[in-house]
Amino acid sequence: MKKIDLFFTPNECEEGILNDRTVIVIDVLRAATTIAYALQNDCKEIIPLVSIEEAAKLAERIGRENALLCGEREGKKINAFDLGNSPLEFTPEVVKDKTLIMTTTNGTFALSKTKGAEKVLIGSFVNLSAIVKSIKTKEIEELTILCSGKLGRFALEDVVCAGMLLSEIKLKESNDAVKVSLLLYKQYEKDLYQVLCESKHGQYLISLGLGEDLKIASRVNSLKVVPILKEGRIIRGENA
Amino acid sequence: MKKIDLFFTPNECEEGILNDRTVIVIDVLRAATTIAYALQNDCKEIIPLVSIEEAAKLAERIGRENALLCGEREGKKINAFDLGNSPLEFTPEVVKDKTLIMTTTNGTFALSKTKGAEKVLIGSFVNLSAIVKSIKTKEIEELTILCSGKLGRFALEDVVCAGMLLSEIKLKESNDAVKVSLLLYKQYEKDLYQVLCESKHGQYLISLGLGEDLKIASRVNSLKVVPILKEGRIIRGENA
Repeated sequence: MKKIDLFFTPNECEEGILNDRTVIVIDVLRAATTIAYALQNDCKEIIPLVSIEEAAKLAERIGRENALLCGEREGKKINAFDLGNSPLEFTPEVVKDKTLIMTTTNGTFALSKTKGAEKVLIGSFVNLSAIVKSIKTKEIEELTILCSGKLGRFALEDVVCAGMLLSEIKLKESNDAVKVSLLLYKQYEKDLYQVLCESKHGQYLISLGLGEDLKIASRVNSLKVVPILKEGRIIRGENA
Repeated sequence: MKKIDLFFTPNECEEGILNDRTVIVIDVLRAATTIAYALQNDCKEIIPLVSIEEAAKLAERIGRENALLCGEREGKKINAFDLGNSPLEFTPEVVKDKTLIMTTTNGTFALSKTKGAEKVLIGSFVNLSAIVKSIKTKEIEELTILCSGKLGRFALEDVVCAGMLLSEIKLKESNDAVKVSLLLYKQYEKDLYQVLCESKHGQYLISLGLGEDLKIASRVNSLKVVPILKEGRIIRGENA
């Protein structure tokens, strides 16, 4: 690895800054976790979109029999959508062979910032090792990690996850953000579930009765899937 | 204190978000440190501006005999300006009774985000206790700390300084950023000079031969001055 960079929030990415880079988008609560579950459970693909309107229009064009509308606003399932953003909803029975059209507050917004990137992987605690293996087998000049954050702000759980990922990569140099994420991971590594419970985002989800999602999101390496974003679609990348 | 908020970078502040709030802008390397020195050494006022062009125009209007043009780009003194952004330059002999027109990469940009705020204070390690005393004497409903960062990105030294400030205030609640800044301060409190040396920004200044500025910036509570921004001018606020 020649160069590493880490963004705590999507808005730090000015247009063009990710051009030709390999980018890992992290969104522990919950889009990246849910995407990993959906692909593991054999959905055909996931199409991430920023707005509810775009998502609804595309679903109409594809046909509602083949597509499911998924996503949240303020953590809650969007009105008239099929699924919310809880990994628990994306069972094999529900998602197998389906196209999932997804819009979430933070994760799909972060993904929209990766236009121009050479390769985009999507990671969280549940598939961290699979992501690390996948990038280790490739000659990558410059790796960028983009945390989704929460409403444009710093989210603890994403930065701890970035730190865990970075702890498994040999780094030649680092910047302040890299240093801090490694330090935070070291601070919290013994109880990652606790990080999610302590985080503002986790507390909000618990208040909505979605505490089970935190447990699922904290199960490190429970899945082997490597989601990649390619030409607007999220599909299973090859495992290393 | 009813509510506390902390921004790691100026770009996280959307327009209007700071309206009617009391805001502390932090820029350890170097604008806030330099501003504290300039006021302590009896300059008349400091007018912070975002662009070199604005600054030069204003200096012409005021008259170069009463005003000094100060600031940096990429850490270096701006061509044809009187002073750079090193606290060492702002001696009583040079700045007494002068209007300083200042433009810097990060600090004056962060200050430009505070339009609409009720009160704006400017702090760094050198005047931390004075700032804390000043806000403790007032009934503040909602305090916001805005770190200047570096080129729109997270800067370690500013966040550690925010953590130090927060450690001296009784907090009823916190968010992820507050939590992290307190943790980072705890990690580094024994050697704040070391933080500046480790930070990307500090390393860059050292590479420019400006290492002395790091020593000055790490002298906690060496000054008693409380700089406040009022109607576009930075002046001495009342000490508590």
